[in-house]
Amino acid sequence: MPAKVSVSDVKGEVNYENLIKEFGVQKFDKYISKMEKLGIKLDLMYRRNIVFAHRDFEKILNTIKNKKEFAVVTGINPSSPLHFGHLLFLRQAKFFQELGADVFIPISNDETYVFKKTEKLEDATKNAFENVIVDIIALGFKKNKTKIFISTQFSKIYELAVKLSTKVTFSTIKAIFGFNEQTNPGQIFYAVMQSAHILLPQIEEFGGVKPTIVPIGIDQDPYMRLVRDISEKVGFIKPSSTYHKFLPGLLGGKMSGSKPNTCIFLTDDIEVAKRKIKKAFSGGPKTLAEHRKYGGNPEIDVACQYLYFLFEEDDKKIKEIFENFKNGKLTCGDVKEYLSNKVEKFLKEHQVKREKAKNLIDKFLIY
Amino acid sequence: MPAKVSVSDVKGEVNYENLIKEFGVQKFDKYISKMEKLGIKLDLMYRRNIVFAHRDFEKILNTIKNKKEFAVVTGINPSSPLHFGHLLFLRQAKFFQELGADVFIPISNDETYVFKKTEKLEDATKNAFENVIVDIIALGFKKNKTKIFISTQFSKIYELAVKLSTKVTFSTIKAIFGFNEQTNPGQIFYAVMQSAHILLPQIEEFGGVKPTIVPIGIDQDPYMRLVRDISEKVGFIKPSSTYHKFLPGLLGGKMSGSKPNTCIFLTDDIEVAKRKIKKAFSGGPKTLAEHRKYGGNPEIDVACQYLYFLFEEDDKKIKEIFENFKNGKLTCGDVKEYLSNKVEKFLKEHQVKREKAKNLIDKFLIY
Repeated sequence: MPAKVSVSDVKGEVNYENLIKEFGVQKFDKYISKMEKLGIKLDLMYRRNIVFAHRDFEKILNTIKNKKEFAVVTGINPSSPLHFGHLLFLRQAKFFQELGADVFIPISNDETYVFKKTEKLEDATKNAFENVIVDIIALGFKKNKTKIFISTQFSKIYELAVKLSTKVTFSTIKAIFGFNEQTNPGQIFYAVMQSAHILLPQIEEFGGVKPTIVPIGIDQDPYMRLVRDISEKVGFIKPSSTYHKFLPGLLGGKMSGSKPNTCIFLTDDIEVAKRKIKKAFSGGPKTLAEHRKYGGNPEIDVACQYLYFLFEEDDKKIKEIFENFKNGKLTCGDVKEYLSNKVEKFLKEHQVKREKAKNLIDKFLIY
Repeated sequence: MPAKVSVSDVKGEVNYENLIKEFGVQKFDKYISKMEKLGIKLDLMYRRNIVFAHRDFEKILNTIKNKKEFAVVTGINPSSPLHFGHLLFLRQAKFFQELGADVFIPISNDETYVFKKTEKLEDATKNAFENVIVDIIALGFKKNKTKIFISTQFSKIYELAVKLSTKVTFSTIKAIFGFNEQTNPGQIFYAVMQSAHILLPQIEEFGGVKPTIVPIGIDQDPYMRLVRDISEKVGFIKPSSTYHKFLPGLLGGKMSGSKPNTCIFLTDDIEVAKRKIKKAFSGGPKTLAEHRKYGGNPEIDVACQYLYFLFEEDDKKIKEIFENFKNGKLTCGDVKEYLSNKVEKFLKEHQVKREKAKNLIDKFLIY
């Protein structure tokens, strides 16, 4: 769909303040201390303000405070195997699951296909089963609090989308997504299908209306606006959302599952992953002597960023790394090697868990 | 959806020749003798030219001749219980089943709801289970050659619709159905959903590509044009269709499930049905003496028409009735009583079969 924010070039210069204004969302920062006051152990994504904006998070905070039921929905577009970019959504989902939320993960193979990210629908479905679902399970979601479904293989979801479809007109959808005459009917309908994904936890079968949090990319915010509008018309609670900063691609630009050199897949061979890290962008050509003398920019250096976003849990340590990178004590090679070891450990463990996960699909999948 | 043919007033004066030209379909008559030459015992709908037009019926004739596999699809919009108008589609489906076709009956509760024929989707679904499916089974379809499904409860159908949706643009759909900005996305998507209903027999799970015949109202022909266009793009065989004349409503105008006085439901109490017949339209006020003297018009008399379309199997007998009605020997009352007895017998037997049918739903329904 037409993204209103271009993420084709995200070398550290995205202006998140502007995005907040442009999309009319709220800054997230005040919730960091509010959550801490509740005794919540924050994921690094919150501690480090990687989650930078939200809609209606107050509702979720109160739900957690009052120990009420809530849900988290995070959809995955199965156009490629999962890569590190997906981890940002999924670790938020896990975080809320630890706080009591039921996790719903729609795998939108319909979206993949109608927006022509795969040639055949079957390619998206196959990837969903062989990679995406297995990876999600391997990441350690709880069996009894996680529901994964394939959008075209769970008839309840089409049923819900049909119900929602009468609450909105083509003209509204066109205004939100910028569709034109060449748009196909699958793309038009997908707008309400995604609303159905997000509102599914509120149907009676899943316990009825409840607050729901949706970690989502800011470029996907139009879907949030639509679903929040629709939800009121069907007597559901308006879902809340959080938005996180962009994890840069390995080459410094956008990360894309269709360009294997821009991302590390959870299924990448460890040697392949290490090679990708070695080639990662660091801010442009510079000799070792220059780096030692002038230092580097950890806001641009991809390895530094990956440590910050995902792999260095220790806040003190990440600060140290950034400082030493800036003053030239740590070279790009040093940071890459440090990251490489972290990634190797993560992938090794993950790929073992994947094998076990393959036998658990039926425990997580709803039809 | 916007019907291009108005059936609000069908007192015998519909010009079927004009409809054939307007819709660009073919006259059916030559197939009557062609089928007879193959030794096929024709249903009265074909013998009497009630089926008056078709698209691509040659393909079906050849399939029957060569004893090849084929399918018949006839969708039911479950906005009301089944009434006599539905019998025209269903007896065609049975006719083709006798000739070897597998029968697919999509119950389009999505259509009912997105076009606002019921207030809630659940109303349509409930009616589908409590009435429509039970009635269909009671009509005597073969268990092993009949597949009934609820459009929102059979995920394969949404999957197929998604696949088809990329083969057509909004602009094409708009041109065919005349949609506007106020159209809801469910209505837009339903265009491809109905194509999915019609093409379902051709998916691999049901044995792959095969000729398919769709008995359909001429006002629904836009859906045929769309599905025939789409089918080629996905490597399926273009489905064929037949069109039958309009069975008039009891009051002489249009028959409508939402106006109980215009139709007899298969679930009507026998006394109710008889009362409805008594009040049926016969051409306007006339004394008995006038009728005896000038005769009546069996093309307008609803009781005569119901005998002709549905309840008088004997061709000689129906000719006799029409003649005697025309010359005044038979009164409106006579014909109504004759019809009433036929309908009583039919409904009594049908309603007994309904009770048995209730336990057979699982044998016919696919999920």
